Amino acid sequence: MKKGRLIVISGPSGVGKGTVVKALMERDPNVRLSVSATTREMRPGEVHGVQYYFLSREEFERGLAENRFLEHAVYVDNLYGTPEEPVDQMLAEGHDVVLEIEVQGGLQIMERRPDATFIFIAAPSFEVLEARLRGRGDTSEEKIRERLERARVEYRVAPRYQYIIVNDRLSDAVDDVQAVLRAEAVRADNQLHVLKEES
Amino acid sequence: MKKGRLIVISGPSGVGKGTVVKALMERDPNVRLSVSATTREMRPGEVHGVQYYFLSREEFERGLAENRFLEHAVYVDNLYGTPEEPVDQMLAEGHDVVLEIEVQGGLQIMERRPDATFIFIAAPSFEVLEARLRGRGDTSEEKIRERLERARVEYRVAPRYQYIIVNDRLSDAVDDVQAVLRAEAVRADNQLHVLKEES
Repeated sequence: MKKGRLIVISGPSGVGKGTVVKALMERDPNVRLSVSATTREMRPGEVHGVQYYFLSREEFERGLAENRFLEHAVYVDNLYGTPEEPVDQMLAEGHDVVLEIEVQGGLQIMERRPDATFIFIAAPSFEVLEARLRGRGDTSEEKIRERLERARVEYRVAPRYQYIIVNDRLSDAVDDVQAVLRAEAVRADNQLHVLKEES
Repeated sequence: MKKGRLIVISGPSGVGKGTVVKALMERDPNVRLSVSATTREMRPGEVHGVQYYFLSREEFERGLAENRFLEHAVYVDNLYGTPEEPVDQMLAEGHDVVLEIEVQGGLQIMERRPDATFIFIAAPSFEVLEARLRGRGDTSEEKIRERLERARVEYRVAPRYQYIIVNDRLSDAVDDVQAVLRAEAVRADNQLHVLKEES
């Protein structure tokens, strides 16, 4: 069976990358979403292995020591990361696997899995992004400033991604992602087998 | 207006690249085919600027001396090449421009226009290519051997192209080409403008 493709999708809060990923999965049933691990407390309604793998700090740190994370980060005293083994399992089964992660995690995966496909989702403009963040209405000015500052950091890292897709009309953005996946499949380094004289 | 994209399509005789290009142009009216120049005699029914630009050897050599060809080659005592100016004109008008050329020409354009998109069209296997060449029925064994030898040369150069698309089912191959064009448009280096904080 043909191995699946590892797809890293990043982009600032407010850009709608979750919506893009959801729409992609609805269109393409072969796409799977990677589940992250975290040390934070499980909240009511959450299920181990669905929203997150809920690990103790000891378990998480053992995984790190054994180099079993594709990427990880610390937020507000908790560890978050992507266990490699379930991802490789899904890839081996032929699924394309999407990691929806922050750019800091994306950079780690560029080092560890340079053969993955890296897609950054951007807003039509920074002004639009700012308007979207403000438009939510339920967020304090401090929180908005913090998110904008983080968005600026993400935008500075974005040129290191292979593709930058603007989420203006959702269906166009999903068309773009699907075109990228189809194009990546026919990139020369993935197609050398068709040039062999004896098959 | 957005500048068009320069698309180089190569592949051995018998692989159906002309059919792929024709189908691409039928689907996408923005695509234009580049017209080559040649010093060979015009044949009945041919029109200057349609099949070829028919140039005298002196005109062609002056063009070469003035560096006005994207690529050129010599076949059976005649010169063939792609004048750069009409291509740049079409690109400036926003058209995607396809050059359907041999790999020797493709390599020249990789040097001169590394920003172009390079697509190699391959047969499902070398055996299929050989069968297709033989299946035409109107070709001498010597001619077939010659074409197979040339195909081997083209296949050895193919890994230097960015994309290798197999022409098995025509509509799939054209889907692949269109996906490549859509994906290239969202490659990070073509999208940096969307990251600017002031638009």
